[in-house]
Amino acid sequence: MKERSSGLQSRAAGLSPGSLVHVGERKVDKVRIRVIDYDGDNVFEKEVGSVEECYPFRDTSTVTWINIDGLHDADVIGKLGGHFGIHPLVLEDIMNTTQRPKMEDLGEAVYLVLKMIETGPDCEIGAEQLSLIFGRNYVLSFQEKPGDIFDPVRERIRKGQGRLRKMGPDYLAYALLDAVVDDYFVVLEKLGERVETLEDELISRPDRKTLGDIHDLKSKMLFLRKAIWPLRDAVGRLERAETPLVKETTGIYIRDVYDHLIQIIDNIETFRDMLSGILDIYLSSVSNRMNEVMKILTIIGTIFIPLTFIVGVYGMNFKFMPELEWRGAYFVVWGVMIAVGAALVVFFRRKKWL
Amino acid sequence: MKERSSGLQSRAAGLSPGSLVHVGERKVDKVRIRVIDYDGDNVFEKEVGSVEECYPFRDTSTVTWINIDGLHDADVIGKLGGHFGIHPLVLEDIMNTTQRPKMEDLGEAVYLVLKMIETGPDCEIGAEQLSLIFGRNYVLSFQEKPGDIFDPVRERIRKGQGRLRKMGPDYLAYALLDAVVDDYFVVLEKLGERVETLEDELISRPDRKTLGDIHDLKSKMLFLRKAIWPLRDAVGRLERAETPLVKETTGIYIRDVYDHLIQIIDNIETFRDMLSGILDIYLSSVSNRMNEVMKILTIIGTIFIPLTFIVGVYGMNFKFMPELEWRGAYFVVWGVMIAVGAALVVFFRRKKWL
Amino acid sequence: MKERSSGLQSRAAGLSPGSLVHVGERKVDKVRIRVIDYDGDNVFEKEVGSVEECYPFRDTSTVTWINIDGLHDADVIGKLGGHFGIHPLVLEDIMNTTQRPKMEDLGEAVYLVLKMIETGPDCEIGAEQLSLIFGRNYVLSFQEKPGDIFDPVRERIRKGQGRLRKMGPDYLAYALLDAVVDDYFVVLEKLGERVETLEDELISRPDRKTLGDIHDLKSKMLFLRKAIWPLRDAVGRLERAETPLVKETTGIYIRDVYDHLIQIIDNIETFRDMLSGILDIYLSSVSNRMNEVMKILTIIGTIFIPLTFIVGVYGMNFKFMPELEWRGAYFVVWGVMIAVGAALVVFFRRKKWL
Amino acid sequence: MKERSSGLQSRAAGLSPGSLVHVGERKVDKVRIRVIDYDGDNVFEKEVGSVEECYPFRDTSTVTWINIDGLHDADVIGKLGGHFGIHPLVLEDIMNTTQRPKMEDLGEAVYLVLKMIETGPDCEIGAEQLSLIFGRNYVLSFQEKPGDIFDPVRERIRKGQGRLRKMGPDYLAYALLDAVVDDYFVVLEKLGERVETLEDELISRPDRKTLGDIHDLKSKMLFLRKAIWPLRDAVGRLERAETPLVKETTGIYIRDVYDHLIQIIDNIETFRDMLSGILDIYLSSVSNRMNEVMKILTIIGTIFIPLTFIVGVYGMNFKFMPELEWRGAYFVVWGVMIAVGAALVVFFRRKKWL
Amino acid sequence: MKERSSGLQSRAAGLSPGSLVHVGERKVDKVRIRVIDYDGDNVFEKEVGSVEECYPFRDTSTVTWINIDGLHDADVIGKLGGHFGIHPLVLEDIMNTTQRPKMEDLGEAVYLVLKMIETGPDCEIGAEQLSLIFGRNYVLSFQEKPGDIFDPVRERIRKGQGRLRKMGPDYLAYALLDAVVDDYFVVLEKLGERVETLEDELISRPDRKTLGDIHDLKSKMLFLRKAIWPLRDAVGRLERAETPLVKETTGIYIRDVYDHLIQIIDNIETFRDMLSGILDIYLSSVSNRMNEVMKILTIIGTIFIPLTFIVGVYGMNFKFMPELEWRGAYFVVWGVMIAVGAALVVFFRRKKWL
Repeated sequence: MKERSSGLQSRAAGLSPGSLVHVGERKVDKVRIRVIDYDGDNVFEKEVGSVEECYPFRDTSTVTWINIDGLHDADVIGKLGGHFGIHPLVLEDIMNTTQRPKMEDLGEAVYLVLKMIETGPDCEIGAEQLSLIFGRNYVLSFQEKPGDIFDPVRERIRKGQGRLRKMGPDYLAYALLDAVVDDYFVVLEKLGERVETLEDELISRPDRKTLGDIHDLKSKMLFLRKAIWPLRDAVGRLERAETPLVKETTGIYIRDVYDHLIQIIDNIETFRDMLSGILDIYLSSVSNRMNEVMKILTIIGTIFIPLTFIVGVYGMNFKFMPELEWRGAYFVVWGVMIAVGAALVVFFRRKKWL
Repeated sequence: MKERSSGLQSRAAGLSPGSLVHVGERKVDKVRIRVIDYDGDNVFEKEVGSVEECYPFRDTSTVTWINIDGLHDADVIGKLGGHFGIHPLVLEDIMNTTQRPKMEDLGEAVYLVLKMIETGPDCEIGAEQLSLIFGRNYVLSFQEKPGDIFDPVRERIRKGQGRLRKMGPDYLAYALLDAVVDDYFVVLEKLGERVETLEDELISRPDRKTLGDIHDLKSKMLFLRKAIWPLRDAVGRLERAETPLVKETTGIYIRDVYDHLIQIIDNIETFRDMLSGILDIYLSSVSNRMNEVMKILTIIGTIFIPLTFIVGVYGMNFKFMPELEWRGAYFVVWGVMIAVGAALVVFFRRKKWL
Repeated sequence: MKERSSGLQSRAAGLSPGSLVHVGERKVDKVRIRVIDYDGDNVFEKEVGSVEECYPFRDTSTVTWINIDGLHDADVIGKLGGHFGIHPLVLEDIMNTTQRPKMEDLGEAVYLVLKMIETGPDCEIGAEQLSLIFGRNYVLSFQEKPGDIFDPVRERIRKGQGRLRKMGPDYLAYALLDAVVDDYFVVLEKLGERVETLEDELISRPDRKTLGDIHDLKSKMLFLRKAIWPLRDAVGRLERAETPLVKETTGIYIRDVYDHLIQIIDNIETFRDMLSGILDIYLSSVSNRMNEVMKILTIIGTIFIPLTFIVGVYGMNFKFMPELEWRGAYFVVWGVMIAVGAALVVFFRRKKWL
Repeated sequence: MKERSSGLQSRAAGLSPGSLVHVGERKVDKVRIRVIDYDGDNVFEKEVGSVEECYPFRDTSTVTWINIDGLHDADVIGKLGGHFGIHPLVLEDIMNTTQRPKMEDLGEAVYLVLKMIETGPDCEIGAEQLSLIFGRNYVLSFQEKPGDIFDPVRERIRKGQGRLRKMGPDYLAYALLDAVVDDYFVVLEKLGERVETLEDELISRPDRKTLGDIHDLKSKMLFLRKAIWPLRDAVGRLERAETPLVKETTGIYIRDVYDHLIQIIDNIETFRDMLSGILDIYLSSVSNRMNEVMKILTIIGTIFIPLTFIVGVYGMNFKFMPELEWRGAYFVVWGVMIAVGAALVVFFRRKKWL
Repeated sequence: MKERSSGLQSRAAGLSPGSLVHVGERKVDKVRIRVIDYDGDNVFEKEVGSVEECYPFRDTSTVTWINIDGLHDADVIGKLGGHFGIHPLVLEDIMNTTQRPKMEDLGEAVYLVLKMIETGPDCEIGAEQLSLIFGRNYVLSFQEKPGDIFDPVRERIRKGQGRLRKMGPDYLAYALLDAVVDDYFVVLEKLGERVETLEDELISRPDRKTLGDIHDLKSKMLFLRKAIWPLRDAVGRLERAETPLVKETTGIYIRDVYDHLIQIIDNIETFRDMLSGILDIYLSSVSNRMNEVMKILTIIGTIFIPLTFIVGVYGMNFKFMPELEWRGAYFVVWGVMIAVGAALVVFFRRKKWL
């Protein structure tokens, strides 16, 4: 699976730290930059063509959300990062899509990197890296490709629903984080359904595909766990962070996301336990069924063995075999054989072997 | 199983945080609101028709317990929560029946969410979410459906038994929590009996149903563990909480509940260990029995193989086979065959294969 | 097994906390109360008929040890507890024999509950609950039934051996605790011998009983672990307790008990590891032996199969089979068959299958 | 495997602590000493013939990097260490190539020992010990043999690229550490590819080699884990170290390395989990395939058993067997046998055994 | 195995704490007392006949090392302990050879108990208990029997090598501890070699002995782990101990021993992991080989089954069987049988079953 191989590449050895090199698959052709600027009263929204158009927003008092779709253009990210005073190591992390989720307090800003997870129709899992940076009056978000996950947040900003317009960039960052974590529930629910389908299948009719499915789901759970487990720490540190950038009113919302993450991890662990249980049951019932078949076949063989012996006896060519001469001996032998066969069947039934 | 799939849904993605949406199965038609108001001298008890009737109790000095049965009515919970000054995120949690047990210090009140667990006649397990909020002079309790678990507490209030009437809302909240935890013992005892029945069955007569039963009990233990484990943390935090809402005299009682929870978790872990042991023994004895059967069948076959060979020899049609001519050769061959068969039986007995 | 089911019952749901109800098996008919009162110079010892006779000892300056055998009489325990000012929840715990070992600092006294463990002749394990309460000048001990485990302590008090008479109630409590823990060593040693016997048996001659024995010992280790593990915490807390009731000179002795408990737990874990190893070896050698038997049986069959084919060939009734006419062909065929059989035996030997 | 046996030898028993004895394989003939001395403006680089030539650099204000290739010469290391005031125990550690990665704050300098890991063409893994010591104005690095891993760092010093020339010895030490850790990614990526190849192979065509490969990869992961796990602690301590030798500007870079290490360990754990899963699947599919083969063979046998019985019946030599006389009986028997065979095939198909 | 049963006996129940009773095997006849007294300038060494001769050394300013070989003489240990002011509980511990390694700060002295481990020619492991007590100017060491492990230390004292003569009793205690820990490396290296031999054997030719060897090595690793794991804690506490008895200059040496212990434990864990892997591979390859054999045997049988059927057909005695009359039919049947046999062989080859 593609997703599992990620998380391994680093910058090419020998490059100076802080060099901006894109690591990962390039998912879009052109970088797309969208700016939303708002305060309680007004909203301004624009898709800009060059990074420079974003510069003026740094110094306004309104909240500015700059969303970058596409991480391959070192020029765009370098310029934007430079203008907003982001440390080169952080910019390097943004461009390297194999980051482990983490939170860093940069002093003037907070950096949070995490994975957006999506499932396809066949439950295949894809991950996209999202970097969030928020400062005093701005939020920068870096995605690998455009997606619709943040559209509801944009809509809430446009319509002034909820408290989003009244609060600062920390709350906007929370809203984005919350949208991503809510999506985890969707993914997990899909996988959970498959786990339960598998469990039901197991009881009704296990086949060889089951084994592959169990393995596949286990790998997916492992992948989710690896993507989400460190995020819990990161959000926990965000909650406890003593940065003035996270206001106290936002703290309770971050605590809520943290609770959701614990709940998700709890569920992943439960699913992993269930899958282990299913695997055990599967293996033992496959082995039991096989043994059952072999036993029945062997019993069939065992019933015929003495009969074949008997017919062999009367196939012998001795000159003097009294039975051969007797009239009706043939039918007596048939009777004996039927009796022996029946006796064996009864015996095996009694022993509960049949 | 139904219960295991819970714990996964969150609010529909895109909804603003704090939106009151009921998540979970709707278990009652109409929300039922019961109010008990008491102090050391008087008790007042009423089932009210509308939330507004509860409002006045907020400002009395007596202890008021408002019990809500049914979580699907956002209007009722929103109004009540608004009047008592509960944070919208908490109200959202109350209506979402997939919460993980937790405790939150809301400043003016303490919020505790936990699972009530009940068993049916066939040991099937159901969980219901209970939210407890207690403040300076009130306790709010939110259940999914009416139940009889709190009736003894109501009775003690009515009769003025014990210290319940003399103490504050923290003690009432403790009494409710204690009633739920006492019920865990009942559930666990039932499951424990089944584990022990299973163990006895295992030694006397294991069959295929056993495997399903082990799997089923393991799932149930997993479910209990998931429901109770986080409650231990929550109650632990409640005990250590530096909130003036929990008086020192109540602290020792909460410590007692905490001890009970540790004892319950201990037992769950023991049962899980026992079930693992039972599974191991089951698998190995099933496999042993099967092997035993195959061995005996194979031995039967092996005894007849040389005999069949012998009769085959004398079935050959060679012109010159001296034995065929001999009188009595037939009986000698029978003697030889019986001797060979007996020798093999003795040999296998000696080897302890039979 | 009886002992494993314990640890589950709590007070009947609906009872007010602090209600004195005996939970557990009633092991004696009548409660027995023994008082020993001593200081450096004098010892007074008496078996009293009613609780009231113990009252005066509360206010003497000498050390008083009141030992209660039998926990079913709520009246006796209630009165005694009331007179010595013990919290009702603690009295409830004393009467409920399903407690998890724990230590509680009651301010005026220290409460320690633990399990006394004894083995019968067949290594069956029984547990009895012991509650110790010691205050400024008294020790109360509550056992389920009279036993001889404390007799050596009584003897040391009577004879004034060691430092027991010169020290306070904390040292007496330590001496009782130490007697119980020393008994754990005896139990563990017995079980350890059985584990080693099992290991030796395993190598010489494993049979089906072995599996049951392993399972039985594993259950016993689980039971011991559950009884002793929490006691370690309790004693650890006692050692670190900042209560003036535990004098510094006694502290080093409690530390010694703590070390013993760690050593015991260490050994339990080692035995559990050993049992797991024994189980693995047992299962794999049972399976190996079975396979070995099947292989030999199959080889016997396989040697006869071509021979039976050969005799079948010459049993055919074709008119024109030159060999049948030849003189000596019969003996040649015998030679061929012996050669084939021998060749197969040699072949299987070479392959190390035989 | 060679690498696994390392990590065991200590100095020969009886030697005084601090005795300089080389432990490990000698990988070069002659010790090679390279000096690079630089500040923001100038770079001086030289391969020196004797240790004494390095002495003057201790007292210059420029940053000096002395690289030693070859650890077997106690004289060289003793003199250099003596001149730079390194504790004899540390020098002993440098010469003993079986060190566990660790960091030590020596007061005047910081000592870091770690493993450089390289893979050969066949994925075989080799480890080389690297000791780094950095003080106020120098970095000493001790390698077992010359390698090209630090060449890019040298190049950056020569060309004045990045911030290397502008920063102190702590940054140089970081750059070396970073080069080593970057190499871990390369190694892990190679191994990861093999794990995934293995997984694909498993599904398409498992054979006996697979088992050896799984075992081999598991050993390699164990080896990596043992080499890298303690380095995480060491780097973590370096980051938190309150030594003035590590400047705050360098701290963020060390944190970056620390994150990389966590990511690497995460991946190792994931690979280990994957390998366990692969092993389970492998074992169960090997066993399934084997059982399948045995089942089909047994079914073939079972189909012929009744047929052989039938032909046996008509091979009997009874005088009075009516069927033998009938014209066409022979063909009827053939018909019967074909019918029986076909019926059995259909029966086994229905049962899904075939 | 003898060594595993240790660690269980405590003083006979009922004995007063602090009673000096020897627990364990008596390994020497007569207690041997050796005294070495030294300072920077002089060394005095003597084997004394009675404890009393050691008394004067307590009050000299030189460092005195009193080494006792043999722990069964309560009189010797009691007197010596009494003179040096050692707590009776500690003396009890010294005489009980089943102690868990631990460190105790006695105020005026430090008590360290640990295990000396030795291997015999056949890799059998023996443990001996060593108690070290060091105070302001003395070191007492208690061994079960005389050994040569401390001879190099004695030699270094005599010759004045290293810093031993210049430093205090804490450094001497370190030197003894270091000698013991260095010996662990030797033992572990021997076991490690056996683990690797086993791994090589496994790949070339596994047999039944392998299983016993794996079990044996696992037991040994368990034993080592139990002996060394707690020592790590003890040495860690010694390093952090805030006792003036351990000087700062000695601290770094103790830290070095601590590092060695971590390295040893690391290796034990690695070996345990390797053994588990080896066991898995062993079991699966034994089972594979067995299955392979059974498969080949069954295939041989299956090839002959249709042939035997064919010869059976022509053994039938029907009057009208046209084939029997045909000239050459016999040879045609042979041709058919060879063809069938060859076809089956080809078929099984194609299927890769052969």
